Amino acid sequence: MNIEAFYKITYGLYVVSAAYRGRKNGYVGNTVFQVTAFPPQVAISCSKENLTSEMIEKSGFFSISVLEKDTPSGLIGLFGYKSGKDVDKFESTRHITTGHGTPVLTENAIAWFECRVIQTVNVGSHLLFIGEILENDLTDAGKDPLTYAYYRDVKKGVAPKNAPTYLEPSEDKPAGKTGKKYKCGVCGFIYDPAIGDPDGGIPPGTPFEEIPDDWQCPVCGVSKSEFKPIEE
Amino acid sequence: MNIEAFYKITYGLYVVSAAYRGRKNGYVGNTVFQVTAFPPQVAISCSKENLTSEMIEKSGFFSISVLEKDTPSGLIGLFGYKSGKDVDKFESTRHITTGHGTPVLTENAIAWFECRVIQTVNVGSHLLFIGEILENDLTDAGKDPLTYAYYRDVKKGVAPKNAPTYLEPSEDKPAGKTGKKYKCGVCGFIYDPAIGDPDGGIPPGTPFEEIPDDWQCPVCGVSKSEFKPIEE
Repeated sequence: MNIEAFYKITYGLYVVSAAYRGRKNGYVGNTVFQVTAFPPQVAISCSKENLTSEMIEKSGFFSISVLEKDTPSGLIGLFGYKSGKDVDKFESTRHITTGHGTPVLTENAIAWFECRVIQTVNVGSHLLFIGEILENDLTDAGKDPLTYAYYRDVKKGVAPKNAPTYLEPSEDKPAGKTGKKYKCGVCGFIYDPAIGDPDGGIPPGTPFEEIPDDWQCPVCGVSKSEFKPIEE
Repeated sequence: MNIEAFYKITYGLYVVSAAYRGRKNGYVGNTVFQVTAFPPQVAISCSKENLTSEMIEKSGFFSISVLEKDTPSGLIGLFGYKSGKDVDKFESTRHITTGHGTPVLTENAIAWFECRVIQTVNVGSHLLFIGEILENDLTDAGKDPLTYAYYRDVKKGVAPKNAPTYLEPSEDKPAGKTGKKYKCGVCGFIYDPAIGDPDGGIPPGTPFEEIPDDWQCPVCGVSKSEFKPIEE
């Protein structure tokens, strides 16, 4: 199996949300696609371990927010790497709530859809929810969506372990002259000194050891101490 | 329902192929995504009216070829707008045949997957095939995949009527100073004189009437006579 071939499949990045008994949650996912045009229906693949999956199953509703290209890593970290069992992800993020009680993230979202579950398909580690679209909106026609390729190649993001498209990060590339690469123990993000973390104020060429102690993982927000060197 | 919101969902473009009793066929589709990582499984949404769907159902196998960004319109026209009932699409296109007899398009393909059907889900006008990956290859790591956004925005392609993501082409935009827009009666491609058809040798600003008679629709390859003016 050539795992690099999977990287050639194109995806966007979305926040999929749901609520049950007044509790709201959402996660970052890439597996969203339209399955029929008449009527418009979409399918999403959702880990059985996600709190949101449980809420979708119990409530029968979910929403999809299409993230914009310039979505900050912090929002992806909050919805992609933190568990709704520990934090209320919607507490400080802009969202609306539909008539069915479904939260819809509107922060950094350029379009959204609310869906009613029509079928649930067990595909092993994940559930495939087929939903008909009840309501939708295009909130920013002029902006491009964030694609998984852009997130991976330009923003250096990696998929969490329970994503349908999780692949073990490659660790076999030798480090450059600026020292070893370091890997985040929580989300798997790899700090490459040759690239640095320009969004976080760390210029390319900065060895890991010289990063200030208050620096946080650009993907999941944990502290520098969670990183471990990648042995060559 | 805001149909423009659907354009913010990101897709690639693929040729999905199958064979049954020695007959081969394939179609262009955008609805391909991985649904689980362990084991690797993919889902595709396939019109019940496609000959390929029938072959997938009967044989239990299908292949997915990831098209490269610079795939010529002719190949998309052949696999996307011609029916396997009329032509043998693989007769003159480069492909391999797996041990299960499944054809795999390799022309303009940068990666491919052969899959065995594990589940078939009826979603109305389409069937959702869930397949486990038997074999795959990355044939050109250096090239980018063709995305649906690029095909639509840059190559001016439109989805055929039986696509899961078909949307009625907008016809309400007034024509510029270079005359009326014309629509292909077969695939729905709209010739806009302001844009022309640079790939087909027609510079921007060329009125439809001045296009040579041997010009063909850049999407489906039919002759100029199949076009009708769009009334304002």
